[in-house]
Amino acid sequence: MKKFDNISEMQQFAEYSRKNGLKIGLVPTMGYLHEGHLSLIRSLRKKCDILVVSIFINPTQFDAGEDLDKYPRDFERDENLCRQEEVDVIFYPTADQMYPAPYFTYITVEKLSKMMCGISRPTHFRGVTTIVAKLFNIVKPHVAIFGEKDYQQAIIIKQMVIDLNFDIGIVTAPIVREADGLALSSRNKYLNSANRKNAVVLYQSLEYAQKLLHDRKIKAAVLKGKMEDMILTKPHTKIDYIEIIDPDTLEPLEEINNKAIVALAVFLGGTRLIDNLLIHT
Amino acid sequence: MKKFDNISEMQQFAEYSRKNGLKIGLVPTMGYLHEGHLSLIRSLRKKCDILVVSIFINPTQFDAGEDLDKYPRDFERDENLCRQEEVDVIFYPTADQMYPAPYFTYITVEKLSKMMCGISRPTHFRGVTTIVAKLFNIVKPHVAIFGEKDYQQAIIIKQMVIDLNFDIGIVTAPIVREADGLALSSRNKYLNSANRKNAVVLYQSLEYAQKLLHDRKIKAAVLKGKMEDMILTKPHTKIDYIEIIDPDTLEPLEEINNKAIVALAVFLGGTRLIDNLLIHT
Repeated sequence: MKKFDNISEMQQFAEYSRKNGLKIGLVPTMGYLHEGHLSLIRSLRKKCDILVVSIFINPTQFDAGEDLDKYPRDFERDENLCRQEEVDVIFYPTADQMYPAPYFTYITVEKLSKMMCGISRPTHFRGVTTIVAKLFNIVKPHVAIFGEKDYQQAIIIKQMVIDLNFDIGIVTAPIVREADGLALSSRNKYLNSANRKNAVVLYQSLEYAQKLLHDRKIKAAVLKGKMEDMILTKPHTKIDYIEIIDPDTLEPLEEINNKAIVALAVFLGGTRLIDNLLIHT
Repeated sequence: MKKFDNISEMQQFAEYSRKNGLKIGLVPTMGYLHEGHLSLIRSLRKKCDILVVSIFINPTQFDAGEDLDKYPRDFERDENLCRQEEVDVIFYPTADQMYPAPYFTYITVEKLSKMMCGISRPTHFRGVTTIVAKLFNIVKPHVAIFGEKDYQQAIIIKQMVIDLNFDIGIVTAPIVREADGLALSSRNKYLNSANRKNAVVLYQSLEYAQKLLHDRKIKAAVLKGKMEDMILTKPHTKIDYIEIIDPDTLEPLEEINNKAIVALAVFLGGTRLIDNLLIHT
């Protein structure tokens, strides 16, 4: 397994690999890998010759007052996991190298980045699209994979790829959950044991939404109300948003006629968690 | 000479060329080619194996009320000129193909795009950087060339290339001028004969600035005042801006200690022209 902490070395290796007809796959991560990341790695491992995992805690996607400094890190553990999964390259640049001063350039996907998570995190998606474009230009992948837990992120990246004509295939992989249903996230580590136990209500509320919709036709607003009620029975919960949206456009739906994504962001104590589920009538 | 009006055909040809070890050069244009463009083509012709000229009148770089509709076009003439200059590929997509609905993604180079031309043309550079990034992802050049007449544009594109880690060399080429000194521009076509004659005052004011600076140390504000006086002696002139700036950062200078760019934008009748000159003490 190669490790590059240098942008030009990574670019040269990517260029050399492409010239030799090898297919490059990229799994962008912020490190502290869990089974969710590993499922992305395993899924892409089959689809490419050179599998690159990037590990970079991207400062521009943290809004002011967010958890950049305390975001969990364990490079040695990440490295061992990548080796076990037969990753070919870890790319782990420094923040100084990725954002040398003066830094001025940002990519914005309008409209989509101002909804849902974009409301409480106003510069988050600008940071995500900017770093992902940078990684695309450095790692030069033929294909890149993103987790469906960050559903809005995946849609925004797909839109950026289309709009900016990146010649890169984007694939997504399903959410990986704990035994009780909690979606895996590096931020679950912040939960104390009571909040961890109560956090299962996010997934339970999504399943409840699916069940309600199976039983009868139900308006989105009513569904949201019932989910809210369920979540708020648990102590220390605060709802950031619950949205019932078109899976392709992220447009909020009033009626659910065929399928919809139910997406939510909920605080448990000080920890903000997100989850989502595709529901069908 | 190949002609592609289709994005994926262009991408496939670029990918194929790169795999075969051929070096791709890009000259992005809005067509209606003049000697300025031809000098870019000739300069890059020596530096690459596959020379691509893109011809696309990019709607997103025209601000509201600007000359998008009347911008001059003559594809057949452009095609003949490209053939004469041994261009390998003309890429000329439609606007519908470049900006399919819904289109949401824009690239902004903060600060640099809000100065000088960015003041009277607030969304211009956002349009330029967005289309240039799109062309980079479609044509996949190793090197691209830009004219120094659009000095601010060249600096902004260089900054974008650094910030977003495009693995592309950016070169610039000097301004080409008419016999009387007027910088070549497709927009010169809009000038009536009186304004065309008077337009030479732009270049004369730049030479005057150089002469004044040779003769004695002079503050930027004084230099600007003298240039303004000179330009305004001509009828139908209106100054958009005159700036004396650091050649690398575009920061306005108060004192000129070594070298500076003098850049200006002046209306002649309804036509806005730009020009610039590197001056030395």
